[in-house]
Amino acid sequence: MSGILVTGARGFLGGAVLEILAARGAEVHAVSSAPHPEAPGSVRWHQADLLVPGAARALVARIRPEALLHLAWCTEPPGYWSSPLNYPWVEASAGLVREFVASGGRRVLGVGSCAEYDWRYGYCSEELTPLAPGTTYGVCKDAFRRIMERMCADAGVPAAWARLFHLYGPGERPVRLVPAVVLAGLRGEAPRLAEPGAVRDFLHVRDAADALVSLLQSGVTGAVNVGSGIPVSVTRVAQTILDLMGSHLVLDAAPPQAPPGSTPLLVADVRRLTSGAGWRPRIDLHAGLGECIDWWRAREAS
Amino acid sequence: MSGILVTGARGFLGGAVLEILAARGAEVHAVSSAPHPEAPGSVRWHQADLLVPGAARALVARIRPEALLHLAWCTEPPGYWSSPLNYPWVEASAGLVREFVASGGRRVLGVGSCAEYDWRYGYCSEELTPLAPGTTYGVCKDAFRRIMERMCADAGVPAAWARLFHLYGPGERPVRLVPAVVLAGLRGEAPRLAEPGAVRDFLHVRDAADALVSLLQSGVTGAVNVGSGIPVSVTRVAQTILDLMGSHLVLDAAPPQAPPGSTPLLVADVRRLTSGAGWRPRIDLHAGLGECIDWWRAREAS
Repeated sequence: MSGILVTGARGFLGGAVLEILAARGAEVHAVSSAPHPEAPGSVRWHQADLLVPGAARALVARIRPEALLHLAWCTEPPGYWSSPLNYPWVEASAGLVREFVASGGRRVLGVGSCAEYDWRYGYCSEELTPLAPGTTYGVCKDAFRRIMERMCADAGVPAAWARLFHLYGPGERPVRLVPAVVLAGLRGEAPRLAEPGAVRDFLHVRDAADALVSLLQSGVTGAVNVGSGIPVSVTRVAQTILDLMGSHLVLDAAPPQAPPGSTPLLVADVRRLTSGAGWRPRIDLHAGLGECIDWWRAREAS
Repeated sequence: MSGILVTGARGFLGGAVLEILAARGAEVHAVSSAPHPEAPGSVRWHQADLLVPGAARALVARIRPEALLHLAWCTEPPGYWSSPLNYPWVEASAGLVREFVASGGRRVLGVGSCAEYDWRYGYCSEELTPLAPGTTYGVCKDAFRRIMERMCADAGVPAAWARLFHLYGPGERPVRLVPAVVLAGLRGEAPRLAEPGAVRDFLHVRDAADALVSLLQSGVTGAVNVGSGIPVSVTRVAQTILDLMGSHLVLDAAPPQAPPGSTPLLVADVRRLTSGAGWRPRIDLHAGLGECIDWWRAREAS
């Protein structure tokens, strides 16, 4: 019994996690429902559709992993917030953890999101902020966490739960904020921002992956926010991208009146992550956005 | 019965309030325990020490004001957080409101602060965030609000309560953040920041005064945050000041690890203020800090 089973390994975050684990020479078993891609170093690929009954059991029986990092879920924006696929992912995820624990697994890291919190509170603390998911995605992630934590507690397996905030980085889907602004900039157009004055918590995908690996290898249990902890407005992110691209466009800096049902601020309290897992973000927003611009420029040019 | 009674009229915020009311030609009765200073336009000065028994009754009987904006309190930093003077200010303030209401007053605006909130929540909403003042000042302000609101409700007088966040502006006391950084910059020294990574809500004193006047003249009742709603780190404020002063000093932008008992973020949800009183901040941080630098340069040069 050895190695780390990583599900959702072909995803935006999964790819960054594999790079870090491979660089550390960890024994990694990467799972994806798609055929095997190129794998860095010590990564072994397994093709499995976890939504198919019996798939998780067969996978775990074959690998007998020591640790589980479960990233797989339905994550296609924007539909995933309300997708009915969220429900089978609760069942599949609970089944995977059950098989993992039954086979003698010793460490679980599940992955949720800020969507589990009551967003009216804005600043999210694991110990303090009420949970009140407003979407199917949030409800299902929260329900899976409750099941996972109880299962693992019953079996004496330490389990942690990462709540991701707003990730960005090269390879992100084009409809999301950073690519949308970069692509508008490349076309010489003004970006259209849905919530310009909104303040969010942006974290580079490699920093997030590093946080997950640090958490997995720590003794931390329970929910842990994974974010930068640094509040930045959507307008500021967009303006920084435009400035870095050499655009002369100046966005209206005045925050528009936030409507009553809006979420003016959504930021992570990251003290559990920094103190418990000893993690620090390494990529500042300027450098990270610059990397995204270069990535999209290269892609559009090819 | 007419006019607005403004207490604490010689204070940092009081001065800015008087300028705005005078510019609008309002009948203003300004109260201070110190002798009468120069008064702008339509302002009439009254010398009274509200902590002296009977002073509030005599003042109200003489003026018979229609509205009350009660700014006076003990506010000398840093001692005011724990000063025993906070207690007599509760009694004096409650007595003033009682006399005001009994004489037929029609509108009350009391002034409290973010110190009333449970700071662990970080993002402060009037309707949602629990109150849990951690200082004598906060406890006393909160207690006075409760008394004031009940008294006014019993008498059918609409009362509002402004909760101020971090104000700055020309004339601020030198121990506070902005003057301390400006004065360090003038001496060519690096500023010493007690909480460099802390994120706060900074509002120029004239914007705050404008918010109070807008609130007083609106029909809004209950607690209303008075802040910018814009999160900014202490390091960023300091760096902006140094940059504006032409300093080449670069402060460490990496937020240090926030200790468990710290307050990493303290920001106002300002939707009640902007939607209820129709107020908008007018002075952005660059312009406001530039004004402070000019003010201190002129003062140090004289």
